[in-house]
Amino acid sequence: MFDYRQYKRGYFMPPVECNDWVKKEYIDKAPVWCSVDLRDGNQALVEPMSLDEKLEFFNKLIKVGFKEIEIGFPAASETEYELCRTLIEKNMIPDDVTIQVLTQARPHIIKKTFEAVKGAPRAIVHVYNSTSLAQREQVFRKSKEEIKQIAIEGAKLLKELAEADGGNFLFEYSPESFTGTEPEYALEVCNAVIDIWQPTPDKKCIINLPATVEMSLPHVFASQVEYMSKNLHNRENVVVSLHPHNDRGTGVADAELGMLAGADRIEGTLFGNGERTGNVDIVNLAMNMYAQGVDSELDFSNMPELAEMFERLTQMKIDDRHPYCGKLVFAAFSGSHQDAISKGMHYRIEQDPSKWTVPYLPINPEDVGRTYDSDVIRINSQSGKGGVAYVLEHNYGMIIPKAMREDLGYAVKDVSDVNHKELGADEVLEIFERRYKKFTPVFKISEVHFKQIDGIQTEVTIEADGKTTVVEAGGNGRLDAVSNALSKHFGRPCDVMCYEEHSLKQGSDSSAIAYVGIKGDDGKEYFGIGIDHDIIRASIDAVESAMNRSMAE
Amino acid sequence: MFDYRQYKRGYFMPPVECNDWVKKEYIDKAPVWCSVDLRDGNQALVEPMSLDEKLEFFNKLIKVGFKEIEIGFPAASETEYELCRTLIEKNMIPDDVTIQVLTQARPHIIKKTFEAVKGAPRAIVHVYNSTSLAQREQVFRKSKEEIKQIAIEGAKLLKELAEADGGNFLFEYSPESFTGTEPEYALEVCNAVIDIWQPTPDKKCIINLPATVEMSLPHVFASQVEYMSKNLHNRENVVVSLHPHNDRGTGVADAELGMLAGADRIEGTLFGNGERTGNVDIVNLAMNMYAQGVDSELDFSNMPELAEMFERLTQMKIDDRHPYCGKLVFAAFSGSHQDAISKGMHYRIEQDPSKWTVPYLPINPEDVGRTYDSDVIRINSQSGKGGVAYVLEHNYGMIIPKAMREDLGYAVKDVSDVNHKELGADEVLEIFERRYKKFTPVFKISEVHFKQIDGIQTEVTIEADGKTTVVEAGGNGRLDAVSNALSKHFGRPCDVMCYEEHSLKQGSDSSAIAYVGIKGDDGKEYFGIGIDHDIIRASIDAVESAMNRSMAE
Repeated sequence: MFDYRQYKRGYFMPPVECNDWVKKEYIDKAPVWCSVDLRDGNQALVEPMSLDEKLEFFNKLIKVGFKEIEIGFPAASETEYELCRTLIEKNMIPDDVTIQVLTQARPHIIKKTFEAVKGAPRAIVHVYNSTSLAQREQVFRKSKEEIKQIAIEGAKLLKELAEADGGNFLFEYSPESFTGTEPEYALEVCNAVIDIWQPTPDKKCIINLPATVEMSLPHVFASQVEYMSKNLHNRENVVVSLHPHNDRGTGVADAELGMLAGADRIEGTLFGNGERTGNVDIVNLAMNMYAQGVDSELDFSNMPELAEMFERLTQMKIDDRHPYCGKLVFAAFSGSHQDAISKGMHYRIEQDPSKWTVPYLPINPEDVGRTYDSDVIRINSQSGKGGVAYVLEHNYGMIIPKAMREDLGYAVKDVSDVNHKELGADEVLEIFERRYKKFTPVFKISEVHFKQIDGIQTEVTIEADGKTTVVEAGGNGRLDAVSNALSKHFGRPCDVMCYEEHSLKQGSDSSAIAYVGIKGDDGKEYFGIGIDHDIIRASIDAVESAMNRSMAE
Repeated sequence: MFDYRQYKRGYFMPPVECNDWVKKEYIDKAPVWCSVDLRDGNQALVEPMSLDEKLEFFNKLIKVGFKEIEIGFPAASETEYELCRTLIEKNMIPDDVTIQVLTQARPHIIKKTFEAVKGAPRAIVHVYNSTSLAQREQVFRKSKEEIKQIAIEGAKLLKELAEADGGNFLFEYSPESFTGTEPEYALEVCNAVIDIWQPTPDKKCIINLPATVEMSLPHVFASQVEYMSKNLHNRENVVVSLHPHNDRGTGVADAELGMLAGADRIEGTLFGNGERTGNVDIVNLAMNMYAQGVDSELDFSNMPELAEMFERLTQMKIDDRHPYCGKLVFAAFSGSHQDAISKGMHYRIEQDPSKWTVPYLPINPEDVGRTYDSDVIRINSQSGKGGVAYVLEHNYGMIIPKAMREDLGYAVKDVSDVNHKELGADEVLEIFERRYKKFTPVFKISEVHFKQIDGIQTEVTIEADGKTTVVEAGGNGRLDAVSNALSKHFGRPCDVMCYEEHSLKQGSDSSAIAYVGIKGDDGKEYFGIGIDHDIIRASIDAVESAMNRSMAE
């Protein structure tokens, strides 16, 4: 039954207005990042990862720069227990990396968790219980006070077991389903936990506020975070952490506004994997900072490799429009975008190649291991002359004259429109050559001789209709002379309106390409090209093609 | 080169603080929705849609409830021109739907656009030019004043041509790349356009603010929108529209906060298709309202059908975690989530089935045409007893006793862990039957007779090791008597700790299923089940299976 009336807002506003965060404009410092790919992310996979897969993933997370990694729920899963033991026993945890393990606030589970992390150089033990109204009423059927006691008893047991073990443990508490919890009550529970743990500057504790299910607009979440951050006991020794999910499609906004509101730390996953709509996407968040000139402290310079690993191990597919990493996120098919990008790239080279301001491209695709040519300017029926010219220049070194671009643009568009498909660079080249060179000609020029008398005199040998004719003509230059010869022979104009020529490759064996446009007897401009080692022959071929073109149409 | 220092914030703050919007908590009214699937969305496809495909898409948009639909850029694309003519000439536009066409602010393009919409019952002519600093400097190489003149000339021409045509035209203006434009300047240009159009209550104009490229945190965008909304001339006759893109992964947040900041209208696409990272996702936005109890005025009751059409026509794939419509967005694999959902569903039936408050499910999957059984509770190695019990109950009507659930849960988890895969309901059933019934037994009970003397007396015929023995025993009930007979014969305890039985289907030919747990001689509890038309035979089979289980282990 599609009826909005069965729903209501399931969150609660803070008791006082908490909107100071809105005055901050941007995030100027990276948070502490904690990857929960191996727990929360893994938990949401159709096929959870194996031990070996998790080890590979763990090592990649370290390589990217994560310093805190939640490796699982070892009391609830055999594989996660094994992962924990393997990392510890094989000394696979670098000195600057801390593993994190999750446990419900239940005594036997907490105990098993401490067994699992025994011997770890350092570990965050993350204890949680659900505090939301819905869970209290429907799942636990307990009062606020009883639910708070679960948190308190859990916090106490963590402290006891950590002291008994003597290892290097940090504590984290999550009021699970925080977004469905009354902020005053969440505060009360968190403060009760903090009061037990008594964090110090040397041994801070983490209070993590999970948007277990995203329920409000992101600014409401930010005000909830600000309320907590302002009112937590012993705030200077508390790391405020967020764990946003993405049910409303605003997980990234939750994290960003939440950081402005006081959060110091973000739990999330690569590419936003996780329960249902996923956890907040750390790649997205970190790259958002990067694109505003802020050091995210994570290295995504090889995005394709990271994406490959992610897709292989999780069997999830990264969306083609996924910010910063999807296949299409740098693609420009439309003519006006292609044109602006092309101009922006030229401007960049002219002005200041060290700063990136190219229109339609938030970042340089090359930063994240993408190739500008195959990922950015792509040609289909929506594309224009700028894109087509770009493709020929960047793939084949052909600098198409401005006057010729529109004609070529329409030719390419037509093919794409009719065939209803994207065109590769090779297909664009083929269309280009077929239009301006490799079509069935009305005539051919088999020989040309020049003499320098009164400008240039030429003898042009023309083959047409099975006949060979030598035509003599003069002009103020070689091209002019040839065009006059053609005009004279065929009795129709062959006025060169545009001529450009350049070498195609470096070196003495390079070819030149000539582009010629002539005005036909219908007043329209017709184009031709010629390619030859000899620059004169190339230009004569171009005139020949242009004239043929005008006679064929 | 992965170096954040080459980037800077490319947007501009409003000249005065504009954060009144932050005091509004939620969106209480649907905006005017305008689908740009057929233009902006189509423009970003590897293979743009054909005329027939666009017609199908157009009709579906109408069915969903869109009242304004941008059908293309008819001056730039032959297919879009044809679409426009077909819709008009074949009278395919319902009375309450307005088509919209896009045109650059260039005279010959504007003229061709008016030709394309000639005869439309009503049309929005949407004119734009780029106003951002980057585009002014890099692409147009024009001053602020010159760029403003382009807008002014375009606005004038629209007015002239509309008056000359006499048709029913509405005007829309976009300062393209608004997010990279100084707000004061964007305001100046928009006001210049409004001053020409002189909108009235009967003939409002639309000022559309495109986040052509998303550049700032969403609250900054909201403050830009608020600044514009507060300072536009003739505001009461202007419809403020937003056109967010998603480069920073916060397109939905931009739209939501922008609506709080004064926007009346949203341009976006289904499932967020569009240039690069896409346009704002209207399905997501509308469903966010729906999930908070607000009428979105769009009907997504058949999401699978809509998704099928979308994927087929655009050749894009909807991400598995796409809010409200991805394959996995209602899935719960983890034990604690499954348990909470299961309890929430029971609570809902008990308390108020008209209100939805089930944990971990923002909306009822059935609202959008999904099936609760196959999409929600899914079983793999992360799953727990609650999920397994749920699957057996909802697929096969088997209500597994609480005492038995843990044993069954581990059995299922083991199979999924070892096989490293998700299990279907049929596979869960098979594991259940193999564990409690269909295993190789130590003995069989071939016949049982009862007499009512001093409670119940029984004669149980037991077949074991090729021998048949008739054992007599008594008890306070039939099950007790049989269990005593087994205990006596095998010389080991067979104490029934748990017994539950219920019919499997309605009607006289239904079978009953009995679940029995006995305490074995090791003190552990062993379970068995029996299924039979006769309720006594079912329970005896269950005891037989439980005893066999205890003897086999």
